[in-house]
Order: sequence, then C-alpha cells, then structure tokens
Amino acid sequence: MSLLSVGTIAFDSVETPSGKRDDAIGGSVSYLGTAASYFSDVQMVSVIGEDFPEEIIDFFQTRKIDTSGIRRLPGKTFRWTGRYGDNLNEAQTLETQLNVLNEFDPTVPESYRDTEYVVLGNIEPGLQRAVVEQLKNPKVVMCDTMNFWIEGSKESLIQTLKHIDVLCINEGEARQLSGEHNIVKAVKAVRKMGPQSVIVKRGEYGALVYAFDEWFSAPALPLETIVDPTGAGDSFAGGLMGYLASIKQGLTPDTLRQGIIWGSVMASFNVEDFSLDRLKSLKDDEIQNRYKMFQDLARC
Amino acid sequence: MSLLSVGTIAFDSVETPSGKRDDAIGGSVSYLGTAASYFSDVQMVSVIGEDFPEEIIDFFQTRKIDTSGIRRLPGKTFRWTGRYGDNLNEAQTLETQLNVLNEFDPTVPESYRDTEYVVLGNIEPGLQRAVVEQLKNPKVVMCDTMNFWIEGSKESLIQTLKHIDVLCINEGEARQLSGEHNIVKAVKAVRKMGPQSVIVKRGEYGALVYAFDEWFSAPALPLETIVDPTGAGDSFAGGLMGYLASIKQGLTPDTLRQGIIWGSVMASFNVEDFSLDRLKSLKDDEIQNRYKMFQDLARC
Repeated sequence: MSLLSVGTIAFDSVETPSGKRDDAIGGSVSYLGTAASYFSDVQMVSVIGEDFPEEIIDFFQTRKIDTSGIRRLPGKTFRWTGRYGDNLNEAQTLETQLNVLNEFDPTVPESYRDTEYVVLGNIEPGLQRAVVEQLKNPKVVMCDTMNFWIEGSKESLIQTLKHIDVLCINEGEARQLSGEHNIVKAVKAVRKMGPQSVIVKRGEYGALVYAFDEWFSAPALPLETIVDPTGAGDSFAGGLMGYLASIKQGLTPDTLRQGIIWGSVMASFNVEDFSLDRLKSLKDDEIQNRYKMFQDLARC
Repeated sequence: MSLLSVGTIAFDSVETPSGKRDDAIGGSVSYLGTAASYFSDVQMVSVIGEDFPEEIIDFFQTRKIDTSGIRRLPGKTFRWTGRYGDNLNEAQTLETQLNVLNEFDPTVPESYRDTEYVVLGNIEPGLQRAVVEQLKNPKVVMCDTMNFWIEGSKESLIQTLKHIDVLCINEGEARQLSGEHNIVKAVKAVRKMGPQSVIVKRGEYGALVYAFDEWFSAPALPLETIVDPTGAGDSFAGGLMGYLASIKQGLTPDTLRQGIIWGSVMASFNVEDFSLDRLKSLKDDEIQNRYKMFQDLARC
C-alpha cells in the first residue's frame, strides 16, 4: 500500500558541533518520504519554488516516490537556518524564510485521495486539517507538530487533533500542550484531545509510547557521533508509517511497537550525516541489521 | 549467598512536590540493604549515633539483615536535609550534618570478609577502597559515587575505580568524571578507569549500560506520581546486587540485564513513598508482577 506524506521541502543551512552545511535539501516531507520509501510506495504533497533543482525531484522518483503532488510556485523555496550546540536535542533557529510556503494550500491529487495511511509533517494545523478533509477513507493518520503551533495556534491544533490517530510529539511539547509536567499525566491529557496513540519523542532517550492501554518504552541507539539531528523526527515518522502502510495487519499493539523500532532505525541512520546524505543510499541489509541492534539493546 | 553492603545510615528531612517528611530513616545502606533483602542475605557495614532508634535495627533484622557491622558511636547520627522541585532527577541539598560519619572507619567484621558480592554505597572513595582491601575473595564489587567526590576527591576516586567491577553513576556524573559530553564517549572513558560494567542512571529515562562489549537500554516505569526520589539509586543497586548474589551463574550478560530490571523494580517501588515506607513491606507477588511490567514495557 501507499503512504501519503504531506509537509515541507526546504533548503536548510545547519551548523552542528560536527560541521556546517549550507543550502542542503531538508524539510519534513523530504525526510519523511525518503525514510518511508524503504518500506512502501510514497506519495508526496508539498510546495517548492522556482529555484528548486529538478535532480532532487528525480532522486525522489528513483526512490519510487510519486511526486505529482509537489507544486512548483513562482518565488523561492522555503529556507531554514539553524544551529545545534552540545545539546543536540534542541535546535536554535537563526532564520526562517517561508517564501513559497506562504502560499502552501495542500491539494491532495485525486489519485491520492483513497490512500489509507497518511502522515502529516509539521505544518500549520489548519493545513493539516484541510488535508484530512480531502481524504476518502483514511485508516491511520499520524501528525507531527511543534512548539510554534502550540503557542500560536493552539485552538486550531486542538481541532486537528480530533482527526488524528497517532500523534508524534516531543517531550517539551507534550508538557506545553497539556500543561502537565509529569509525562504520564501529560500523555493522558493529550490523548483526551483525540489521538489514540501518543508517541513522545525523547531524543537520545528514545521514545515513550501510550497506545492500546499500554506503555512502550523504545530505546535510542547510543551513538558516538551525531553529525546532524535535523530530520530525525521526520525520519522516525516516515519509517514507522512506511512500515505500517506496508503490512496487512494495520495498526495493532505489536505492529505499532515494530513500526516504532523501524522508525528509530531510520532516525538513527539519518543523524549520521547532514541532509539526506545517509538516508538516500541505505542498503536493505544495513536496515535489517540495525533493527536487530535495537532488539538486542532492549532485550530483557 | 550474602551481599555485603556498605554505606551511610541517616536521618533525612525531605521536601518534594508531594509533601514533606522530617527525620525519616535514610542513608545509602538503609535503601541498599532493604532492597537487596528481598533477594539475598544481607550484611551491613555502617555507623550510627546514640540517637538512632533500636527499632530500626530490629526492623533490619526482621528482613534477615546481619547488622553486626553497624557501629554505634558517641554523638549524633548523620543528617541530610534536601528538597526536590518539579525536576525530580535532582535534589537540592539544604543542609548536611556529618556527625558520627566524620569518624566512619569501615571495619568489615571477620565473618563478612569472605563475602563475594559487595556493594559500596556513596561514601568517600578512600573509605570504599579501605573496604575492598579487607575482603578475601571479592567476585563482584559495585560502587556508587557522586559529584561531590568527583569534584573534591577525583584522584582518590580514580584509585578506587581500579578495584571496581560495576560502577553505578548518573548521567551528569559520567560526563563530569570523563570530561566527555557525548554519553557513549563518556562511558568508554569511565570504563578505561577500571569498571568493566558501567551503568548510567538516567532517572525517569531508565538506565544505559555498557558491559561485555554490548549496550543495554533499560526502561523506567512511567509513574504518574513520584512521592520521593531519595534512595532510588540505592534501591536500584540493592535490587541488582541482591539478585546477582542470589543466583549461581554470577555476573553474565544476561544476569546483568535481569539484575538491572530487578533493581529498576525496587527503585520504582521506593519512589512511591517517603523513606523506606514502600520498600519495607513489599510482597513477593508485587515484585514479580512489576518485573513483568518492565518486560512488557520493553518488548519489541
């Protein structure tokens, strides 16, 4: 089956303790789609400017990603400039140029509207809702969000969450959205807003998940070098949802756990290099071996 | 088999977001020994003052703890006063009265010197070394330490670490001791100082362990209410080492993982109430059920 992925495509300029990269390909849907493409067919909905190189679109197509939902608009592609210090869990945004993202009105192509597995990258919550309203029969809809929308568009986000099955949120955002410091209380409060599965991303501490009335603690791979954490959350979501879209059982307690490990695998590769550099040329046996590493890490 | 446990006995006055308790029984060996007593026989080496109530010693004895290594000295028992805010991972020390701890010269009773499993609670590193030197045939020696000794007695601590098999250390302390921010690099650096097994305690994120050339990520139980985190690390160490002392296989990759879960079980009970209140009257089936909860939490 296919995974419909919606989000941004960007030029990122990133500085981390490991180095610096200017004008590299980023944006939530670039990471989401590329990670998911190792598991399922992928459909992308996004927006780019006139300056966006055709060869990246070609690359997406070599990964069997359907790019017919990417609209090219007059103007420049969305740009983000950021920096990470020693605490790689938190980016400092230096500059954001929305450019064509200002005109992003996500139209789901007719051929995508039957797609049952959907992942909504971090965009304005009203746009996320507009995507869901165009779908005919969504089975599992995941969304990501960020502090910016929790602060500035909380009511809209709460409306969106009513349509969401799986929410990916980081720990600070879960606290901010719920107003609860204790993470168990925070998750329970967020769950009442709609999403039946809540995934709390904890960076180098892995993920804490509440779904189907049970808790799951997913480990993170201990990594000696994290070159660039940008896109880790999107790679995670892409691996998880790509996996779920690829299997017949759908979302169950066990497939959710397995999907979260596949997502963690993809995130762990992603942070090993800047931009899509590591994600774009993974081999199947590398991915399989890393899944076993995660299982070994958690075995008890 | 028996577990030799060495450390402090204290009166603690603690304030947490859940409440306040004055003059409650605390100290590393109180938690260590009580937690371990659910798994193995326990021998205690510690010091108390004239003001220490005999009924606590009687309680230890009802848990089949050999208290003949607890010396009562003229003067007052060690006292600690502390407070926790919303971040329950870090205590703020308000007052420390060392009292008889100033004269603590840990003499291991002759009848304890053959004991093979040893846990050295957080005391001055030179005293920890003095204990090890009195042992005839130690098989597994674990030690705990703290930032205070890393700052003030680093050279002595480094000497002690040469005699240690398993080090329990929290994340900030691992960074401080090694001078490395990345936790993988920090653990590898600490391991070169002696301990073949390094357990990094991460509070509500569980523990990250490196031993036998493999990593183990142990989950923490998501708890809605943490009444008092005091003694969590000691309860963890007691459960782990009590378990190892109770089995024939000794320290292996698998028994270490199992022991870490047993330790996590005991820590998770301990934080549910002040002082030893929760630890002192656990039922076997409660402990067994919670072990299964940890396994379910990590299953993937």
